[in-house]
Amino acid sequence: MSSTHQLRCIGCGARLDAAAVASDFRCPDCGGLYEVVYPWSPGAGVSAAATPVRLPNPMGLRSRWQELRTSTLPIDQSGVWRFRDLLPIVENLDHVVTLREGNTPLYEMPRAAELAGVDWLLAKHQGMNPTGSFKDTGMTSAISVAVERGFQWVACASTGNTSAAMAAYAARAGLKSIVFIPEGKIAWGKLAQSMDYGALTVQLKTDFDGCVRLLTELVRRFPIYLLNSVNPYRLEGQKTPAMEILEQLEWQVPEHIVVPGGNLANSSALGKGFEEMKHIGLIARVPKISIVQAEGANPLYRWYNDTNHEMKPVTAETRATAIRIGNPASWRKAARVIEEMGGWCEQVSEQEIALAKAEIGAEGIGCEPASAVTLAGLKKLVRGGRVAKGERVVLILTGHTLKDSQYTIDYHRGELLTDAEMHAATPAERARHEELRKAPIVLEADEAVVLRTLEAQMAVSEPGVPA
Amino acid sequence: MSSTHQLRCIGCGARLDAAAVASDFRCPDCGGLYEVVYPWSPGAGVSAAATPVRLPNPMGLRSRWQELRTSTLPIDQSGVWRFRDLLPIVENLDHVVTLREGNTPLYEMPRAAELAGVDWLLAKHQGMNPTGSFKDTGMTSAISVAVERGFQWVACASTGNTSAAMAAYAARAGLKSIVFIPEGKIAWGKLAQSMDYGALTVQLKTDFDGCVRLLTELVRRFPIYLLNSVNPYRLEGQKTPAMEILEQLEWQVPEHIVVPGGNLANSSALGKGFEEMKHIGLIARVPKISIVQAEGANPLYRWYNDTNHEMKPVTAETRATAIRIGNPASWRKAARVIEEMGGWCEQVSEQEIALAKAEIGAEGIGCEPASAVTLAGLKKLVRGGRVAKGERVVLILTGHTLKDSQYTIDYHRGELLTDAEMHAATPAERARHEELRKAPIVLEADEAVVLRTLEAQMAVSEPGVPA
Repeated sequence: MSSTHQLRCIGCGARLDAAAVASDFRCPDCGGLYEVVYPWSPGAGVSAAATPVRLPNPMGLRSRWQELRTSTLPIDQSGVWRFRDLLPIVENLDHVVTLREGNTPLYEMPRAAELAGVDWLLAKHQGMNPTGSFKDTGMTSAISVAVERGFQWVACASTGNTSAAMAAYAARAGLKSIVFIPEGKIAWGKLAQSMDYGALTVQLKTDFDGCVRLLTELVRRFPIYLLNSVNPYRLEGQKTPAMEILEQLEWQVPEHIVVPGGNLANSSALGKGFEEMKHIGLIARVPKISIVQAEGANPLYRWYNDTNHEMKPVTAETRATAIRIGNPASWRKAARVIEEMGGWCEQVSEQEIALAKAEIGAEGIGCEPASAVTLAGLKKLVRGGRVAKGERVVLILTGHTLKDSQYTIDYHRGELLTDAEMHAATPAERARHEELRKAPIVLEADEAVVLRTLEAQMAVSEPGVPA
Repeated sequence: MSSTHQLRCIGCGARLDAAAVASDFRCPDCGGLYEVVYPWSPGAGVSAAATPVRLPNPMGLRSRWQELRTSTLPIDQSGVWRFRDLLPIVENLDHVVTLREGNTPLYEMPRAAELAGVDWLLAKHQGMNPTGSFKDTGMTSAISVAVERGFQWVACASTGNTSAAMAAYAARAGLKSIVFIPEGKIAWGKLAQSMDYGALTVQLKTDFDGCVRLLTELVRRFPIYLLNSVNPYRLEGQKTPAMEILEQLEWQVPEHIVVPGGNLANSSALGKGFEEMKHIGLIARVPKISIVQAEGANPLYRWYNDTNHEMKPVTAETRATAIRIGNPASWRKAARVIEEMGGWCEQVSEQEIALAKAEIGAEGIGCEPASAVTLAGLKKLVRGGRVAKGERVVLILTGHTLKDSQYTIDYHRGELLTDAEMHAATPAERARHEELRKAPIVLEADEAVVLRTLEAQMAVSEPGVPA
């Protein structure tokens, strides 16, 4: 099996070869999750001097990655595998399964910057990945490992973005995939993709935790590769947006990255990416990473503000379904990222999320609700004096607006937020909602009526006169 | 106004400066549509010798475009504006409005190739554009022109992909946008994006033609820029996938391009792109372009098979909503493409579309139903002896699967196709439907039940054993 890396338990620090890890990706001693470590990883216990050929040369890497952008090979056109020097997890690159993930845009957000109170704000839109979410960057890496190890079946428990990504990459690789979902909690729209890509979907008469328990049993008994986020190879792909952001900024490290917090694998992965680049000398410092959760699904926020720093699972409830997670698997990894890199944990209300989503939309950038917690959280971090006006901030948008059209429709028709939720809004927030809500207007097909109505609308909006 | 190009009526050949064109983009003499012509365009009436500095040097272009791939400038990261040498429609590049459209993947489709009966099949997935459809490539070009000309308002009549793209690019540019839709024909999912990006949506109590009539009146009276596909600048952006395909194939021209046929601007634009590249010497020959329509919305197919070559509008009905167009605005342009470049017009049934969509999905590639007519049509073209086994074929997929999740759900639950539609299927097609349909199965959360059921499923699918 692979000699390029080992797996290290983040709980007890035990290290083992990839071939020796249990099928449920849990440490048999302490139950902790694993992370992938290379000879050149921070804290790998191998000095650079001892393995000179394995430590990537940073200057060589920058120009190599730039050069690969002009290649027409699928593996080079992938925004994950272009950075394969820093994720040598497959031995034979023929095993790589790619849908040309990554290469996502880094958008300037001038109006959102003003609203948040910072001079300089960018959004890295991971929802522009092939299946519409950031999960693709982690699926290309983990499915490639599954192929190299000879698996024919893969599985995950999920009702949303993970299952869509898994089903697509599995189909691409010619593997069979199984999705476990809790019955009754089905969101058909979110499952349409898994069906489209040919996954076998199993509705179980239990809750999400029950699904995970049965899935764990399944992968113990059968040769099925587990693709929930406990799989450490998913994080290897998910760390590559860190490289892309720096490349897009010509290696000027921003001060702050803001990430939505759900199961917390994403923030963990980005942190790993930045830390590794610093360790090998590609960058001289790392950005702070702040994590924003919905008020109704805020276990990390509670941990962060708990004097004893205890993690207590919560019963999760938020319309931002992609982060409706009460017992996040990767919380220890994320906690370490905040502690080591600096940054904060913030929480935002349903009303704040809905407003931020509409504000991002008004910049011409569509995202799913979970992504909008970043802008909502940034506003609070600035108000609280934790992010300074001059700091350069990058928001990570995790999903495409098409992932949850119903939320958008309900919002604009005024059917999303309850009176109580709106009541908690400030007068300024209420005015912004009024301005941004765009429910359709219905008119008779009469020329005079249409022209008169639109003339009034245009006057309200103060149009300029064309040159 | 711009001296880089003129507009030429495709009906009577009249040419005029861009500033002189009417706001409805119709020739006042013959009612024809315009196309953008440059001094170096095919049939521009200007010899290459007369304007040596204006004729791009093909070898220089190829290396220049490749080099721009490594740039971090937004305009260079756009898969449309990277090719700006061939679409000099804005004078000041600061006016360009980009969401980093284009740069879409060209996927190998080995299983679909086998099903269609060709050795070599690729799919260019234009649904991977920022708003999820090929319309983005045309909106970036037309909205940039709107900005350069000082417009503050833009408008279109549409219920789908066009309005989503227009709303996004308008928001990005800080322009206001108006969408006209026929009341009662509203598809909320398709409109969610327009609302998200802040468009003013007007439901009119009339049909689609009625919407277009009122829109025409609106742009005559007010300084509003018309963005329906009659706007010739949209086609300038939409021609750039032709350049991208050739670049991705290292300038080996494929034999055949297959495009869905709706309003027919897309096939027209691709044809223009290939013809221009041949004219300036970038390529030595052009591919054939074949256009596939749904049986229920087949005006071009009827024109093609009519002995008098007359275009008669039809009442359009198909579940592939993006091509549910009975009176296509750009039919003359598309007809010219077929005549000049070769290729055929084909039609496919609802059952054939549904099957092809599931087959594309089974390759891990999600697309909206209208995109799937390409594979369905290719099968027929091969069976009819019009495409040979050895021809290299590229399918143009126009929209993302997330654009129409309901179609996917209905298909897999067996609620999409009628008995009559299924009855018309061949036994082989029926067997393929059976194999591809993946409705969820419901199970008790009992370990023994789950393991037994999945073991049976895995045996059916003949899984291999991992190494």
